[in-house]
Amino acid sequence: MEIKVVRKVLDVNSTMAEQNRKLFAEKGVFVLNVMSSPGAGKTETLIKTLARIMPDIKSAVIVGDICTSHDADRLSQSGAPVVQINTEPFGGDCHLAAHVIEKAALSLDLDATDLLIVENVGNLVCPAEFDIGEDSRIVVLSIPEGEDKPAKYPLMFRECDATLLNKTDLLPHLDYDLEAALKYIRQVHPDMPVFQISARTEQGFEPWIEWLRNLIDKKTGR
Amino acid sequence: MEIKVVRKVLDVNSTMAEQNRKLFAEKGVFVLNVMSSPGAGKTETLIKTLARIMPDIKSAVIVGDICTSHDADRLSQSGAPVVQINTEPFGGDCHLAAHVIEKAALSLDLDATDLLIVENVGNLVCPAEFDIGEDSRIVVLSIPEGEDKPAKYPLMFRECDATLLNKTDLLPHLDYDLEAALKYIRQVHPDMPVFQISARTEQGFEPWIEWLRNLIDKKTGR
Repeated sequence: MEIKVVRKVLDVNSTMAEQNRKLFAEKGVFVLNVMSSPGAGKTETLIKTLARIMPDIKSAVIVGDICTSHDADRLSQSGAPVVQINTEPFGGDCHLAAHVIEKAALSLDLDATDLLIVENVGNLVCPAEFDIGEDSRIVVLSIPEGEDKPAKYPLMFRECDATLLNKTDLLPHLDYDLEAALKYIRQVHPDMPVFQISARTEQGFEPWIEWLRNLIDKKTGR
Repeated sequence: MEIKVVRKVLDVNSTMAEQNRKLFAEKGVFVLNVMSSPGAGKTETLIKTLARIMPDIKSAVIVGDICTSHDADRLSQSGAPVVQINTEPFGGDCHLAAHVIEKAALSLDLDATDLLIVENVGNLVCPAEFDIGEDSRIVVLSIPEGEDKPAKYPLMFRECDATLLNKTDLLPHLDYDLEAALKYIRQVHPDMPVFQISARTEQGFEPWIEWLRNLIDKKTGR
């Protein structure tokens, strides 16, 4: 019974996601859904990313959290318009659903936006199940989380188009088997690009930024 | 509509949790529900904890993961009986529900158990909503996740009886504001004990083990 109920919720969400996708296509906006565990470094990665692509790529951000506007406060210093969604009024939702994204997106000037980034709720499970009408999905996996997360949370890594393997600056201080981590990712999603980055030092950002730029240019024809 | 549905699922779960609680009381088993983000160090913390309390405290473990038996394999080296639950057949559930715990608990020899540890699915949101009939709940929060997680995931920190602040061995390598982290925890749950530990080096384990021992002794009258 529980599974049937979940199916219905997901069906309603898919319909809303298709509406979003149509809206984003009309407006020529590339939408990137960014997911991870709590504290993997989504916000810091996005701040450093925005600094490299703005103002060339006109960017806006929707940030999802159960509570607080910490991430939105930090991101708004980039100069990009930022909308914070708090899911607490929706029952402390553990993910962003398509209807919530629609409401937030309509509060932005989509005609003046090339790239809309959605920083999802920190959760390696549920957000992967909810289509929000995005063009691409990425997962930020941080080194301190350990090597085997792709094997333990396969849906997330299967559904994403790239992994940002973050906090590589901590590698000298951890017993971390980088080859094992890459092997786990490849087992779940063989051809997925993996960008090894440190959001703190900005090491390894060039290939990631180039990959992102290509996707945006392809959709928006800038 | 979605909220009503969730309410129903939670009501069914509560009834099952009460049945579990009755069973655990009859058998004189203390049940500890251990929760955290993915990769915060639950398994390593439990391995080091079991080494300190066994065989004096007769322990068993139920481990929840969507996929794999990695954690169970590691934990079983402690000599404790370990049951791995994979939630993938249940739709990749992001938490352990009471009926799943009942099934796993009945496969253990509860008469020969003082302490039953439940290592929940790595997720800082959903597991906090599901009573499994436990006596106590703790959350493992790792230093690399950042200071503000208690503010962003308040239900988890409100519902737990203690925080294990893990990976303190990484403090010298991070820009981490320990006072800020403690302040965030106190804002959500003013009198909650916070044990600063490193599961890797076992620094800070004594007070945590003493706290746990006291709780177990109080319930089981060992």
